[in-house]
Amino acid sequence: MANKIETLALKTAELTRQTHELGIPVMILFEGVPASGKTRLSNELLLNFDAKYTRFIATQSPKADDLRYQFLQKYWNTLPAKGDINIYFRSWYSHYLDYRENEIKHNRYKNYDVLKEQIASFEKMLKKDNYEIIKFFIEINEEKRQEHIKQTKENPLMRWKVQEYGNVLPTETYLDDMHQFIKKDKQWKIIDYTERQNAIEKMYLHIIERLEHAIDKHQKQEKHVDGEFTPDFKTDLFDINVDKVSKDEYKQLITELQQRMREIQFALYDRKIPLILVFEGMDAAGKGGNIKRIREKLDPTGYEVNGISAPTDVELKHHYLWRFAKDMPRSGHIELFDRSWYGRVLVERIEGFATTKEWQRAYDEINSFEKMWTDEGAILLKFFLTLDKDEQLKRFKDREQNVDKQWKITDEDWRNREKWDLYVEASHDMIEKTNTSYAPWLVVPADHKKTSRIEILKYIIRKCEKVLWGVKDY
Amino acid sequence: MANKIETLALKTAELTRQTHELGIPVMILFEGVPASGKTRLSNELLLNFDAKYTRFIATQSPKADDLRYQFLQKYWNTLPAKGDINIYFRSWYSHYLDYRENEIKHNRYKNYDVLKEQIASFEKMLKKDNYEIIKFFIEINEEKRQEHIKQTKENPLMRWKVQEYGNVLPTETYLDDMHQFIKKDKQWKIIDYTERQNAIEKMYLHIIERLEHAIDKHQKQEKHVDGEFTPDFKTDLFDINVDKVSKDEYKQLITELQQRMREIQFALYDRKIPLILVFEGMDAAGKGGNIKRIREKLDPTGYEVNGISAPTDVELKHHYLWRFAKDMPRSGHIELFDRSWYGRVLVERIEGFATTKEWQRAYDEINSFEKMWTDEGAILLKFFLTLDKDEQLKRFKDREQNVDKQWKITDEDWRNREKWDLYVEASHDMIEKTNTSYAPWLVVPADHKKTSRIEILKYIIRKCEKVLWGVKDY
Repeated sequence: MANKIETLALKTAELTRQTHELGIPVMILFEGVPASGKTRLSNELLLNFDAKYTRFIATQSPKADDLRYQFLQKYWNTLPAKGDINIYFRSWYSHYLDYRENEIKHNRYKNYDVLKEQIASFEKMLKKDNYEIIKFFIEINEEKRQEHIKQTKENPLMRWKVQEYGNVLPTETYLDDMHQFIKKDKQWKIIDYTERQNAIEKMYLHIIERLEHAIDKHQKQEKHVDGEFTPDFKTDLFDINVDKVSKDEYKQLITELQQRMREIQFALYDRKIPLILVFEGMDAAGKGGNIKRIREKLDPTGYEVNGISAPTDVELKHHYLWRFAKDMPRSGHIELFDRSWYGRVLVERIEGFATTKEWQRAYDEINSFEKMWTDEGAILLKFFLTLDKDEQLKRFKDREQNVDKQWKITDEDWRNREKWDLYVEASHDMIEKTNTSYAPWLVVPADHKKTSRIEILKYIIRKCEKVLWGVKDY
Repeated sequence: MANKIETLALKTAELTRQTHELGIPVMILFEGVPASGKTRLSNELLLNFDAKYTRFIATQSPKADDLRYQFLQKYWNTLPAKGDINIYFRSWYSHYLDYRENEIKHNRYKNYDVLKEQIASFEKMLKKDNYEIIKFFIEINEEKRQEHIKQTKENPLMRWKVQEYGNVLPTETYLDDMHQFIKKDKQWKIIDYTERQNAIEKMYLHIIERLEHAIDKHQKQEKHVDGEFTPDFKTDLFDINVDKVSKDEYKQLITELQQRMREIQFALYDRKIPLILVFEGMDAAGKGGNIKRIREKLDPTGYEVNGISAPTDVELKHHYLWRFAKDMPRSGHIELFDRSWYGRVLVERIEGFATTKEWQRAYDEINSFEKMWTDEGAILLKFFLTLDKDEQLKRFKDREQNVDKQWKITDEDWRNREKWDLYVEASHDMIEKTNTSYAPWLVVPADHKKTSRIEILKYIIRKCEKVLWGVKDY
């Protein structure tokens, strides 16, 4: 038997070297009641896999600081890179149950189904990106379990660990909920740990089956040819007329609005509401200038600006939403994105960095992604700054001639300009497909800079006032 | 005056674009009593610099979780990459004073001078790596300061912020200690904020001076030719004889020692002592096998193995110690490094990835670096596994012929083998220069694998028992 296990272990290790080479990320989850054998099984894998690309993630009861972030934040942050393996000792399922059992609410959730949906969206996104998720639920005969606990208790140096388990009886809620999860999802593999060797063997056999399948799928996929995409609609969101503000009006309004924005910042902080502001738009439309006006009077300890450039090699090795998820604000903070995850359906679509299939499914993914934050009370507002094509030319030339602005204009800007129509089309599709009730777009004509700044500031303030104090739009 | 400031602001922004291009990392520190104007000055810079490479780091009073890490951990983690700018609102100086004023001890510090030394070592390392550190201390006339506080207090939405300042009176300790720091270090620039425009002007002038100097230095440095290095000693640490353990002895001892190692892990966790284990040695000497034996019975939630490969592009853009500092264990945890920061004086020296000057000064830097952790109670043990050259050849061939081990042997291993003598020389220098009382090396002859495993496990256990319960070496 031991020999058979050794053979299976070698086979599994060999397959993980293949998934590593092929860049398939693998996530192996262990759930089960305390002292059921999760540690021993996960440790068996941990010792067998290459430490260079294997990580052990333990889910612990959330602490005060964890609660300042989105429910799945920890799992976003620690997502395995392509080719890496994460072993989860307890996982987002336990995490969910920790929230539920301890009624961790923060007035954020009307009901816990929201969190179940988040788990479903999260796994769906990952699977679409070829993450291989393997789920084990460990069962054990109660007598054997009590034996495990006794062993630990008898050692004076380790006794305190048992106390740390807290309630070593499996709670009914945990079992009920886990069984519900398992019933709905065939991917779960139940393993009985009562007979140890047998359990290890079953675990390896299941992993082998899954990894072989993943490798097989990966190899077939490489040959996949992208389908065509025909957008069948045009948005009218771009047809907007706004009255220009005069110089005098601007001078007076901007100071008032910035002061109000600062008060809003403090109120959001006090109420622990995160604010996420996303800026997209044509080159030279004034994203940076707008962001500058918004942040000008803010307390810098409470906000961050995230200027998005080309991804680093580490970022490229992760799900495309990873680098944004990592930087989402904690409760009461403000994050301003100067360009964002919408790059997936703009530059990546146009330049072919994403396959048609990838950017087509990104609309849904982005909607689910944004919902994860707004579901928990975040305010998420998105701005698209439009510009007349001639006005862009004027601004480009102005930048070239002004010694203090030259650094702002690059060859890439000129190349993008050549693809103007493609960007317009992609932007239309994007706004149409991601203009949700919970994370709406505001399209802002930016030909007149001062007007766009006033419009955007007013909009943010109104939306925040509504959430904070029920003030109605006017 | 306003116009003059605008000119200075533009000039400064232009210089930061240059430091960005040249890859010079810049750190700008703001210290001063509450409501002295630190926020306004730092915000002035923040708004002026490019958000893509500027980060605002606020130092807050340490929370329980921060205290589980090394004193400077936060600043290591957030170190700017090459070409990036960090603006520190309060800095490691305030951090020091927070520790001191609140007597945050954890029984870790005999005295606070240890932390002052850490600050000095930290800055020294960074400066050597061409980090530009600019330090401002902001003063203000007390009447003006009270006015600032009053302004905030009068706004009902922002009043609570003032309460958050805690004691808005500058404590005597803070002023005393800061003045001591400033007296000893000419790099500090004192700015009186009583007259705002004047303060901003002075700030910009100082930054311009410092950045111009840094750029100038950088350009001269590129032409610098490396000196020769003649190691003037040989260590006798390699001349070791150890009695081989028999198969039977091994079988009995390994189980006992692993069980003891597990108890040690729990005791370290209970006492909140971090353990750092570093493994270096010749290729195929058995680092991985040794690590495997150590961790085999450990609770995987309490340790991590860090297998060091070639640095990523993000890692290359930081101080070479950054990627290791980030992964140092928190209190009570164990971190095993399979290769480590010693790569600087081994592979980087031999392959010329580090200049002679860089790897020569690395010995001192590494000693200071390790001391930062041991000063705070960490146990840090280093193992160098030596191997007979013929034995290596035998193991390489064995790996090539064994289907389950082939992945372990690469062309690089053969190339490294050609440089055997260089590695021996570099290893001798390394051990001689970094074998400190607080972080000692154990050189282990690894020709007999089982013996090396027993030796290392015994050594770790003894050292830990000594720290935990005063058990003497036997």
